[in-house]
Amino acid sequence: MNTTAQDSEAELLARRSLPDEGRARVVIEGVRPQVDGGRFAIKRTVGEDIEVEADAFTDGHDQIACVLRYRSEADSRWREVPMRALDNDRWRARFSVDAIGRYRYAIAAWVDRFHTWQHDLAKRPDGDKDLALAFRMGAQLIGEVAARAGGDDARQLHEAAQALTAKKADVASKRRVALDESLTALMARYDDRRFVTQYDKGLTVVVDRERARFSAWYEFFPRSCPARKGKHATFKDCSAHLAYIADMGFDVVYLPPIHPIGRTFRKGRNNRVTRTKADVGSPWAIGADEGGHTAVLPELGTLEDFRSFVAAAGELGMGVALDIAFQCAPDHPYVKQHPTWFRKRPDGTVQYAENPPKKYQDIYPFDFESEDWQALWEELRNVFLFWVDQGVKIFRVDNPHTKPFPFWEWLIDDVKRRHPDVLFLAEAFTRPKIMYRLGKLGFTQSYTYFTWRNTKLGLTEYFTELTQTEVREFYRPNAWPNTPDILNEYLQTGGRPAFMVRFVLAATLAANYGIYGPAFELGEDRPREPGSEEYLNSEKYEIRQWDLNASHSLRETIARVNRIRRDNPALHDDRRLQFHTNDNEMLIAYSKSTLDLNNVILVVVNLDPNHVQSGWITLPLSQLGLDPNEPYQAHDLLSDTRYIWRGPRNYVELNPQTASAHVFRLRRRVRTERGVDYYL
Amino acid sequence: MNTTAQDSEAELLARRSLPDEGRARVVIEGVRPQVDGGRFAIKRTVGEDIEVEADAFTDGHDQIACVLRYRSEADSRWREVPMRALDNDRWRARFSVDAIGRYRYAIAAWVDRFHTWQHDLAKRPDGDKDLALAFRMGAQLIGEVAARAGGDDARQLHEAAQALTAKKADVASKRRVALDESLTALMARYDDRRFVTQYDKGLTVVVDRERARFSAWYEFFPRSCPARKGKHATFKDCSAHLAYIADMGFDVVYLPPIHPIGRTFRKGRNNRVTRTKADVGSPWAIGADEGGHTAVLPELGTLEDFRSFVAAAGELGMGVALDIAFQCAPDHPYVKQHPTWFRKRPDGTVQYAENPPKKYQDIYPFDFESEDWQALWEELRNVFLFWVDQGVKIFRVDNPHTKPFPFWEWLIDDVKRRHPDVLFLAEAFTRPKIMYRLGKLGFTQSYTYFTWRNTKLGLTEYFTELTQTEVREFYRPNAWPNTPDILNEYLQTGGRPAFMVRFVLAATLAANYGIYGPAFELGEDRPREPGSEEYLNSEKYEIRQWDLNASHSLRETIARVNRIRRDNPALHDDRRLQFHTNDNEMLIAYSKSTLDLNNVILVVVNLDPNHVQSGWITLPLSQLGLDPNEPYQAHDLLSDTRYIWRGPRNYVELNPQTASAHVFRLRRRVRTERGVDYYL
Repeated sequence: MNTTAQDSEAELLARRSLPDEGRARVVIEGVRPQVDGGRFAIKRTVGEDIEVEADAFTDGHDQIACVLRYRSEADSRWREVPMRALDNDRWRARFSVDAIGRYRYAIAAWVDRFHTWQHDLAKRPDGDKDLALAFRMGAQLIGEVAARAGGDDARQLHEAAQALTAKKADVASKRRVALDESLTALMARYDDRRFVTQYDKGLTVVVDRERARFSAWYEFFPRSCPARKGKHATFKDCSAHLAYIADMGFDVVYLPPIHPIGRTFRKGRNNRVTRTKADVGSPWAIGADEGGHTAVLPELGTLEDFRSFVAAAGELGMGVALDIAFQCAPDHPYVKQHPTWFRKRPDGTVQYAENPPKKYQDIYPFDFESEDWQALWEELRNVFLFWVDQGVKIFRVDNPHTKPFPFWEWLIDDVKRRHPDVLFLAEAFTRPKIMYRLGKLGFTQSYTYFTWRNTKLGLTEYFTELTQTEVREFYRPNAWPNTPDILNEYLQTGGRPAFMVRFVLAATLAANYGIYGPAFELGEDRPREPGSEEYLNSEKYEIRQWDLNASHSLRETIARVNRIRRDNPALHDDRRLQFHTNDNEMLIAYSKSTLDLNNVILVVVNLDPNHVQSGWITLPLSQLGLDPNEPYQAHDLLSDTRYIWRGPRNYVELNPQTASAHVFRLRRRVRTERGVDYYL
Repeated sequence: MNTTAQDSEAELLARRSLPDEGRARVVIEGVRPQVDGGRFAIKRTVGEDIEVEADAFTDGHDQIACVLRYRSEADSRWREVPMRALDNDRWRARFSVDAIGRYRYAIAAWVDRFHTWQHDLAKRPDGDKDLALAFRMGAQLIGEVAARAGGDDARQLHEAAQALTAKKADVASKRRVALDESLTALMARYDDRRFVTQYDKGLTVVVDRERARFSAWYEFFPRSCPARKGKHATFKDCSAHLAYIADMGFDVVYLPPIHPIGRTFRKGRNNRVTRTKADVGSPWAIGADEGGHTAVLPELGTLEDFRSFVAAAGELGMGVALDIAFQCAPDHPYVKQHPTWFRKRPDGTVQYAENPPKKYQDIYPFDFESEDWQALWEELRNVFLFWVDQGVKIFRVDNPHTKPFPFWEWLIDDVKRRHPDVLFLAEAFTRPKIMYRLGKLGFTQSYTYFTWRNTKLGLTEYFTELTQTEVREFYRPNAWPNTPDILNEYLQTGGRPAFMVRFVLAATLAANYGIYGPAFELGEDRPREPGSEEYLNSEKYEIRQWDLNASHSLRETIARVNRIRRDNPALHDDRRLQFHTNDNEMLIAYSKSTLDLNNVILVVVNLDPNHVQSGWITLPLSQLGLDPNEPYQAHDLLSDTRYIWRGPRNYVELNPQTASAHVFRLRRRVRTERGVDYYL
């Protein structure tokens, strides 16, 4: 296909016309952070800093001034912070975001004539025969500004100008006047920005509440927990069950879909195509006569019951996350109400989900190429708004990568402009660029490949990419050791130590993490068949009964780790993660620290669930705020054991039968009194 | 300063409105090459390929089609090349630019429904009960296309559709119809691009003639070469001198400014402030009663003489490059004609060039912040156009970094749209980001830090950055071992071997290089004073006499190296430069090769001008097109000596007293006849 570019002849003949203002001489480029040239917003949470850098320079020897500009979109006024020159024409400044919502940032720079003059004067020797002229030039610059200034400022400026040209004064006193700080500040206040260069590409920050950055999720099936002898549990039962979850220290309770479940082609236990009357079906087969995405499964209770459940969770400090899965069971009301939202096969039947040779007759995908796509988009957006009205502010979105990217970009933006405190977690386990694109276009958090990263190299490379490259500007990892769909081989074969390892890794590598329980804390490790990552007797298809008080439960450890997470701000963020070398491939060591280095956490994990492993860990002490010449304390917060370490290399040994991990807080000695050392 | 963003309230309240077309489901991102998000053009020469890559993907399991689109700006029609899928959602295609000028490129992608259907069909087992429906679906797709197609195409399509739904035909034959190549091609011809995603960010290629990429420059002062006993030479003398330069194999003859030289504050020999009547002045102090930037110094001859000189060079296959230095001597006609183009000091005098404590009273810079800047820009642009009219197509621009960046961007674009064969060399020796910015905004070639890179590490890192990173898309290095301003310490102290080393490095590391002669080939190495990089008795201030026939002249070596450069296409380009390891810090080894590996040049240089150095060079044989199990020939084109090498590691020894460098052509054995090996 060849199309015609209408402008091509004009382009060919065009002489480049003069710019409107050719005297804006400063160049601004290489601005960071930004995602795809400003196409997408970067992400932060309330109270966080954004450190902005840019290359800025001008021709010749003139000095420039450079400012970072920012504003909340709710505020029409730009604020400004002067940028500081680093090496190599790089400039830096930071600003803080103090409210949920959207912020803009930009940079402006211009030739600073007064600073140029000061700089030039400082280099002029006392004997320079042009010195008197130089002072007159300064007086002239100051005089021009004085004419723009008023009142006291103008008076001060006139005085300075006079002092620079006074016949009697000596050179030294004139130099003092010229370089005086208050004069400099005054001149900056009235700076001449006629020829300013603006770098304003719509760079945006989406600012979320803290939970976007730091959260511990607990997923469970409300119908089966707490189950009483195979009976379908209700929201009321679940409300009573919330204390169990809160005691473990989670702050997000996440429920699979709670809607009426389709009956046509309903799957039986273990995903069998045939089923019995007793089979409860998969919660992801959404919609039946009782309603669709805005209805509640009657067996769970009423909408009112659900709201009470949300309120009860809130009283325990937990948010409720709902699973939004945009697909329909054949019985879903949409299928009759909006037949154009589904693709028809040549025989007139609705196309069910298929990925040959797999068939999912119980699921109808939406046809996003429908002629009626606008109504579809708005209806699906309204599903979110409906649940927001019921008090839900967190959504785990099922398979977002099977719906169009522009749809999510529009939907998330629309919902967040109405309710900026809403968080979206993308449940996409797919190819890397697709995962990242979903992060870029607005998902607050994202599932990761953590589930399959079980080696030291795999974990190190992956988390370095997630936290130490520009990926961190748009992609917030939420690490899950298991999900109802994924029981990794490592957990299938490693026993209780494997669960311990994966839990500590998830909870300390990622500020956001989650588990699917009670399967996780109870160490459920049976796959449906060898080589499968599906659970045997998966709760997706049946009601399970769990012995929450079993002695092998990891709940105590989980509670302890979540308490450590809360108490230690170093673990509230992923930006300052760094891996530390040691000589044992089975030992992984990494630290996180606060910017002020007052909280430094060192984690060492034995990745081998079967054998004792030991090694020498090498730490960059100065980077961690520790004096290389002083002893420091490694306080294992898991076992509450304290070690005194000296120097960068220290020995660590971990026995999976007792503890697969250390979570040390590194404490520096603050004083010694009567022979006793005190560590902070 | 706080400004008001007029749109902020509207932004706050805005709900994100639906896009015009929400069904364009393919994402295109990560497009390479591009410079600063398409803000600047990439550079190529006629006949070169542009390899374009992009990430492209869609939601779900659908297959996509992806095409690279390109067109010359002189041609309104886009051409298209299908892009090929690599790993990880990366796509690639290439196009070739066959004319000087500007090209555009873009990418388009869409969900390919027919390919998706074929892909899906291939995965469906023969026993699939939906197979018949699947064939009907395909027939439907083909039928839709047939309705858009005409004549024979439509007939063929209808036949295929019928074959897919024929009751009698078996599955195997239907599969053959479905996957038939000519059907596939036919369907692609009428592909449905209703929901196409366009990536069209104005990505541009500036295509130059070959000399932009491959050139050997020779700079000399026309007044002093060939000088006859201190007499001022003329263009006529220079015309006679051109054969000397052509014999050495240069293709660009570059002259310092040829304009009338100012008399006020004229500098004496060795840049002395005082001067005698006999002093000829610096050619960079431009302008006198006789004229300015469009006049010729009467002592050199007339404009007519200059044109004859240009013609004579052309007959020898050489282009003439002029030095354009935008600054004025106090006597320049502009100073009276356009007083607003210069800055006034408070005493009413014109501000001369100053960088305290240095003063240049003989030079007035232009004031680019003049109220009359538009007229200044146009006048300076006209200077280039004037010299183009005299036959000059190459300009070496003096200190472009002391004039505004927007000025150069406008000027170069304007001149090249009129005369796309004009080349600009940026003579900026300044901070790295400024050097790169000048390249980005349009300079065809740029001076480099090569002059100060004398160590193996320094050369390796610098040339890797220049040739193996995105810098190569906008910055074409032109390497100079010396200039009239720079006599590097290495040359001052290393004797003839140092000149040999720097020459071979310049001529083989960089496809574009130059020397300032005859100072270079005659090994002029005396600085004005110890620690200075200025020449003693610099030609900038006086007429020098050179003994071109001196026995120590490097002219024979230079001629040989330039012949090797011409004969070996590997040396015509910098993109395929790679450095090779060896164990001696004084030995540097690198290769360049053509894409087809039929021409592979290996250069080994002994950086030590005083001692014999030897080492074992390790080569990646397969990458260089050599069979690791076969002997190959290393043919030193400098000495015409041939070595038979085997395997990746080979011994090299270089004695600076005889030869500081090998320039090997690596030849693979093509056949053995009667016991004699033949190498290609």
